[in-house]
Amino acid sequence: MRGRGRVPGRKSNLGSQKGKVNDERQRTEVVASTELMEGRSVVGWAARDPSGLLSPYHFSLRETGPEEVLFKILFCGIDHTDLHQCRNQIHSANYPLVPGHEVVGEVVEVGSEVKKFKVGDIVGVGIIGCCGNCLSCKSNMEQYCNKRILTYNDTYKDGTPTQGGFSSAMVAHQNFVLRIPEKLAPEQAVPLLCAGVTAFSPLKPFSDCGADVFLVSSNEAEMQRATSSLDYILDTIPAVHPMEPYLSLLKVDGKIILVGAVAKPQQFSSLDLILGKKTICGSLIGSIGETQELLDFWAEKGLKSMIEVVKMDYVNKAFERMECNDVRYRFVLDIASSDL
Amino acid sequence: MRGRGRVPGRKSNLGSQKGKVNDERQRTEVVASTELMEGRSVVGWAARDPSGLLSPYHFSLRETGPEEVLFKILFCGIDHTDLHQCRNQIHSANYPLVPGHEVVGEVVEVGSEVKKFKVGDIVGVGIIGCCGNCLSCKSNMEQYCNKRILTYNDTYKDGTPTQGGFSSAMVAHQNFVLRIPEKLAPEQAVPLLCAGVTAFSPLKPFSDCGADVFLVSSNEAEMQRATSSLDYILDTIPAVHPMEPYLSLLKVDGKIILVGAVAKPQQFSSLDLILGKKTICGSLIGSIGETQELLDFWAEKGLKSMIEVVKMDYVNKAFERMECNDVRYRFVLDIASSDL
Repeated sequence: MRGRGRVPGRKSNLGSQKGKVNDERQRTEVVASTELMEGRSVVGWAARDPSGLLSPYHFSLRETGPEEVLFKILFCGIDHTDLHQCRNQIHSANYPLVPGHEVVGEVVEVGSEVKKFKVGDIVGVGIIGCCGNCLSCKSNMEQYCNKRILTYNDTYKDGTPTQGGFSSAMVAHQNFVLRIPEKLAPEQAVPLLCAGVTAFSPLKPFSDCGADVFLVSSNEAEMQRATSSLDYILDTIPAVHPMEPYLSLLKVDGKIILVGAVAKPQQFSSLDLILGKKTICGSLIGSIGETQELLDFWAEKGLKSMIEVVKMDYVNKAFERMECNDVRYRFVLDIASSDL
Repeated sequence: MRGRGRVPGRKSNLGSQKGKVNDERQRTEVVASTELMEGRSVVGWAARDPSGLLSPYHFSLRETGPEEVLFKILFCGIDHTDLHQCRNQIHSANYPLVPGHEVVGEVVEVGSEVKKFKVGDIVGVGIIGCCGNCLSCKSNMEQYCNKRILTYNDTYKDGTPTQGGFSSAMVAHQNFVLRIPEKLAPEQAVPLLCAGVTAFSPLKPFSDCGADVFLVSSNEAEMQRATSSLDYILDTIPAVHPMEPYLSLLKVDGKIILVGAVAKPQQFSSLDLILGKKTICGSLIGSIGETQELLDFWAEKGLKSMIEVVKMDYVNKAFERMECNDVRYRFVLDIASSDL
């Protein structure tokens, strides 16, 4: 399966490969440590009910289409939305549900019409489909397409349920596959695919990105001093929280940009918005183009993601710790080294 | 007191004038039908407690300063915010409280340095002060100045409480006095000073103003058909209402612009904002410049305001009717013809 070209029968030989991520990141040797696939069968960790507890689950991947890429998963990030979804707190959860939408893997099979990728490439995936015809799609904002297809808990064009990156392998259309730059370690790329680009996309219009000062919201005196001083706030809080203390920090015409999905309704005062010409708005991840731009920027500048790498059998504990803010700063599952 | 120039002692002789608004609107004859002022004493209708019931109240105006204008009030609009304020539902009400912030009157006295206005001019007033030095003031958005002085229930620079247009006369600095165009009947100008400019200001950035189609929100089928079809919604509802049905009408990147003060907190879902890149924002009246622009536009185009003119002794009933939506479309108090 190494090397580029037509894949007769598209049978992957991934299942027979053994290996590990070595320190030199010789990518062609990055293979799974256990049998990941027998035919199209893969193993993921799935939630079965709103307890959200994950356990191994066997399912099958579709055949790799002419414009599709099959990759074995190396690393996958853990996002608060994964926890929300597993517990059926946002959208309707369809169980069994394999979460994970910050997925980095190594290409093991490409369809006959795939020009952008070859076997051995390190790639990433976030959302995996859109209609291609609507205004959002035509404006390169496909993440807002009403027919976007989410990495998991969604339905693919062939009618099958989508399953996320807490699993051994995935098939995706090349248009939704991102190239992880050579300079960037695969696990370092992981948080950029959702958390990173979710911050990058809405902040791009502001020219003064970057933090010079820290403001601790539990320090009342600091908050008081910062009244009416901010142009915008990127609000990443994934739980119900009062808007007023943050709105009061904004200048006239300032914006709170929500990117953290909150499962329950939140409150605001119309007067807070009216009297200061203030805005509460939302932003969803980023486009494929923006995500690639961020990955390339990250690699070019030699930036680091702050992550805590754990194995799959730690995932339920990781959810627990995430819920009580006991994580600095992003859990990344080392799928390739895990015994699924 | 007719004619321009220095005003020795600045004692107005308005109290001895009699007259009425005649059909030809010969403005120099527009004077009050009753004694409005003895010295600096005027009569307003004030709320005394959170019942919000209005009754006559005597108070004194400050002397007309060098850059100030004294005008007797001809007409004043009734806005839902007046009701909210009288009942102490927003901000802290300081009783006795004379409401009214869409004020049109006739100049009866001008300070020595007033160049823009002369006795007999028909003028309008909304907000009446700002700091002049902050970013909002310097950007001609003085309505967002943190030190803006509201027409009533506020404190003027001299420390006295401000009282609104439900009264016989008012003093204002010329910088906050608007010129009512000759072509525009005074009562027609009234609703433009708050309601009108409140719609005009936030819609100016959109080039496609004007209504071609009506959508009735109680018609579920119509609402369903209109899903994801609107660029923006100007939300004038002054009572708690769900945001979701309106957010669902917006296109990606669409905006709900709140202009109606709601006394209680409202709810929103962060997911509604995030998934569609949608915005809830606020807008407060308009700047002095925008208000003058609207008045001139209204006069130039020969547009009509839809109003119901009532006398002052009807004001409590008008509040009642306004509260149960029994008004088409704006109550305007005919102060000059009322027995205060």
